[in-house]
Amino acid sequence: MNDLSPTSTVGDSVYESGLDKRRANFMPLTPLSFLPRAAHILPDKPAVVHGPLRYTYAQFYERCRRQASALKKHGIRAGDTVSIMAPNIPAMLESFYGTPMAGAVLNALNIRLDAAGIAFCLNHGGAKLLFTDTEFYPVIEKALPLVDHDIIVIDIDDPVATGDRKRLGKIEYEAFLAEGDPDEDWRLPEDEWEAINLLYTSGTTGDPKGVVYHHRGAYLNSFGNALFFGLNQDSRYLWTLPMFHCSGWCFTWAVTAQLGTHVCLRKVDPALIFPLIAEHRVTHMCGAPIVLNALVHAPDDIKPKLDYWVKIATGGAAPPSIVIERMEAMGFEVTHLYGSTEVYGPAVGCVVKDEWQGLPVTERAGYMARQGVQFACLEGLMVANPETLEPVTRDGKTIGEVMMRGNIVMKGYLKNPAATERTLSGGWYHSGDLAVCHPDGYIEIKDRSKDIIISGGENISSLEVEETLYKHPSIMECAVVAWPDQKWGEVPCAFVTLNPSAPDVTEDEIIAWSKENMARYKVPKKVVFGPLPKTSTGKIQKFVLRSQAKDDAR
Amino acid sequence: MNDLSPTSTVGDSVYESGLDKRRANFMPLTPLSFLPRAAHILPDKPAVVHGPLRYTYAQFYERCRRQASALKKHGIRAGDTVSIMAPNIPAMLESFYGTPMAGAVLNALNIRLDAAGIAFCLNHGGAKLLFTDTEFYPVIEKALPLVDHDIIVIDIDDPVATGDRKRLGKIEYEAFLAEGDPDEDWRLPEDEWEAINLLYTSGTTGDPKGVVYHHRGAYLNSFGNALFFGLNQDSRYLWTLPMFHCSGWCFTWAVTAQLGTHVCLRKVDPALIFPLIAEHRVTHMCGAPIVLNALVHAPDDIKPKLDYWVKIATGGAAPPSIVIERMEAMGFEVTHLYGSTEVYGPAVGCVVKDEWQGLPVTERAGYMARQGVQFACLEGLMVANPETLEPVTRDGKTIGEVMMRGNIVMKGYLKNPAATERTLSGGWYHSGDLAVCHPDGYIEIKDRSKDIIISGGENISSLEVEETLYKHPSIMECAVVAWPDQKWGEVPCAFVTLNPSAPDVTEDEIIAWSKENMARYKVPKKVVFGPLPKTSTGKIQKFVLRSQAKDDAR
Repeated sequence: MNDLSPTSTVGDSVYESGLDKRRANFMPLTPLSFLPRAAHILPDKPAVVHGPLRYTYAQFYERCRRQASALKKHGIRAGDTVSIMAPNIPAMLESFYGTPMAGAVLNALNIRLDAAGIAFCLNHGGAKLLFTDTEFYPVIEKALPLVDHDIIVIDIDDPVATGDRKRLGKIEYEAFLAEGDPDEDWRLPEDEWEAINLLYTSGTTGDPKGVVYHHRGAYLNSFGNALFFGLNQDSRYLWTLPMFHCSGWCFTWAVTAQLGTHVCLRKVDPALIFPLIAEHRVTHMCGAPIVLNALVHAPDDIKPKLDYWVKIATGGAAPPSIVIERMEAMGFEVTHLYGSTEVYGPAVGCVVKDEWQGLPVTERAGYMARQGVQFACLEGLMVANPETLEPVTRDGKTIGEVMMRGNIVMKGYLKNPAATERTLSGGWYHSGDLAVCHPDGYIEIKDRSKDIIISGGENISSLEVEETLYKHPSIMECAVVAWPDQKWGEVPCAFVTLNPSAPDVTEDEIIAWSKENMARYKVPKKVVFGPLPKTSTGKIQKFVLRSQAKDDAR
Repeated sequence: MNDLSPTSTVGDSVYESGLDKRRANFMPLTPLSFLPRAAHILPDKPAVVHGPLRYTYAQFYERCRRQASALKKHGIRAGDTVSIMAPNIPAMLESFYGTPMAGAVLNALNIRLDAAGIAFCLNHGGAKLLFTDTEFYPVIEKALPLVDHDIIVIDIDDPVATGDRKRLGKIEYEAFLAEGDPDEDWRLPEDEWEAINLLYTSGTTGDPKGVVYHHRGAYLNSFGNALFFGLNQDSRYLWTLPMFHCSGWCFTWAVTAQLGTHVCLRKVDPALIFPLIAEHRVTHMCGAPIVLNALVHAPDDIKPKLDYWVKIATGGAAPPSIVIERMEAMGFEVTHLYGSTEVYGPAVGCVVKDEWQGLPVTERAGYMARQGVQFACLEGLMVANPETLEPVTRDGKTIGEVMMRGNIVMKGYLKNPAATERTLSGGWYHSGDLAVCHPDGYIEIKDRSKDIIISGGENISSLEVEETLYKHPSIMECAVVAWPDQKWGEVPCAFVTLNPSAPDVTEDEIIAWSKENMARYKVPKKVVFGPLPKTSTGKIQKFVLRSQAKDDAR
């Protein structure tokens, strides 16, 4: 399994004699170390804001130590799995510290999963304990009977929650914390390669895979994100990105490393987001394009007048130029990032070049739509032939697979050596995303392998067709998938959600408009109107649409 | 030697099975990786500015690859030492990449050393090759005959140099580079624990000690400094801090990691510095207090009117309030850092708290004079009893030794196991600096162990007396050392440089003023006027003054 076997060429050097690692100069890298440091430096600073609640860094650290201690009192040991089903609330954030402080591995569950999906994760991960927000009782109540082993259930009864709630466990989170020792002498990892998090990928087909994060990568990508997104002591980070999504792109730790403030959020709703931005003078936030879309299309009367720039990072799909333009008009500076669960969230970002700054937004958006270049903490990025591992020509046309390597690549998939081997083979992480490399070295995703449409032998990038459709003033959201066709094999089919405030259009009008705006063979032969199915992280579920297209075409 | 021997408690966990390190997810951390990345992303951006010279990132990277290749052609092998004697010019910066790209260890020499000192370093480090700026021929010409082994000498004939010059080697640096392959397939370290730099500490007594840096620490403190000092893509970093000083506090690599621009400088001279700041809109610079002093006392007509804030980091001694005040008036925002050669430069910084912002500068300076708190990449910092390793009470009074631990502590001292053992014993790096810990956890250096004055059984911090003397309007610089005294054992003696633009004062006047401004037993009994002896890094050489005081007192 291990393909690292260097033969040292410096073994006899004077630099290798009497200069071994020792406790003074070598300690495991872990993002857990950021919290005691922050609590030491700024104990009274607001670390976590949630509705009317405020936790200072001293309190935040104390609560995490209590969690670690209470977990141990409930029998959790190093190497055990602890799951959590919660939105972006303090208990969730605390678990990213408290659980690994007990030596356990935190498994943050996707809150959009159904009972079977939740049960699969709890069983596969062997969760010994589950923290669960009482608002999620309908799904958890159904999932628990499906769990094949003993599991301790701790309810989180968030005072900020407003929906229907029900307790399923025997202890509430605050009572659980109260059992814990605030001075817990918590455990640093013995090795930075130890697991810190387990995250199940939503996976479009088959069972979800459990991505295992190591402390080393979590530490490094916390720095990577802080450096790329420009966090500092004055940063106030609004939690619009789910923490269960790639550990919140490591911002769960990065904000703490830079002594910023976490602003919690139960629900991605513009009616909640805009007032929080204004109240806390939020400086940074992240989210899938759906979040930006929601902000752009929110009623004008809830949009605050911002007298400063809010930085917003997005990923998962390129932000269309119209979204960039409208976000900028509202006072948001958009950053485009790219990554995946397997690389701790974003590992690639679109570094904006000076020469783009003066360009019209449509042209600038073309550059910014590209996923870009590797973070300083990612050692390798290429678009390559997945068979030969030869990088493709930098022509912006030749399609290959995105490959990454380095210290922010996962340990592997839990209890799935075959998938681990396949995905990390040849010394590279195979992302499954298809892309081109432009002459300037920036990569641009063209599609997921399975999202490419092959029509009359020509590859059609569904993303490219979508990017064009987004320019239509009446289209708010769209997704293009293959429609089975007797003559061409496949043809593009567009699923479209119309902008409620724009004039209605017909299928024929969209097809006619497309003929004027893209190559003939790329024009959708079919347009279906309605809301689009999405994952909890806002990604459009193309596999649902693809299967719908197949059924409809019959 | 190795005191790391953990017994894994997670060895049988599912998280340790089939999830080993492999080439896709584990690579040695090294700051060398920052350069190819920068050259890939922004090949045409100015990376290095030097007088009329401009090197883009593509050119900078090519020159470093050429250096690595040429070194190998001249017989340099992995684990060899390459020394350089140069000011902050492109060849110097290139060596921080090119030399380790050949697997060799860069030994940047202190340009203020005399021939015997240089020869000691070349002999002790076993340098196989020396790059030397032709302006330093007087000292190098004398040093070379003292070298006890064969050494290749490459002259750097910097076109920006203006002084008397002479070539000592057979090849000039540019011709040497021309021999190298611009596409050199350079060597990544096989292990991040490999040595990257060798730096001799100036050492106040005895032979200099050779501090060995590893790639891991250099990488991490590059991030540490970039995060603490707020570097980004728009940073233009002026090289007022010698690169031979702790590898330029790792800014040699940090600026590249953040895609900024390096602005070179042959000599710390306000007449050069101010025009460069204005021309390049410099954003960041570092320097010993002497540099700030020089800027403050420069003639007003060479000071530009800055319409933005320049960030300047200083360390080695606390910036006096008057210096902070005057620097701010000129448009500089002062950051106070602390560290030592053994911890890759700054590892501790004075994080400014929000509540200090509104305070009058004299009060604020009191807080900012404190060395502060650990960087995010330093795992441990304490002020402790050096015998028991017990942290001192946080009372701002009890003196202990500053101790640090973590991944930015050196490998150890080259060929000096006794000193390594002593300095890194008990799991901590013993800095030799004496400090207190304030109730808020910020540390404040009171003295080097040997700089404490013991008068009638009372410890007097020479730094504290100096800090008070700096408030005297006529005093530009001062240093306080022990003066042997029959009655008290030792009494404070002040060596003082007067401000040329302020009214003259006499010894009696300073003593009288001191009596009104400090405790009686701390008042200097003797005042000596004149320039102060300094190390190349601007630190006042107290050992010289101490020996002078001893001689004078006889």
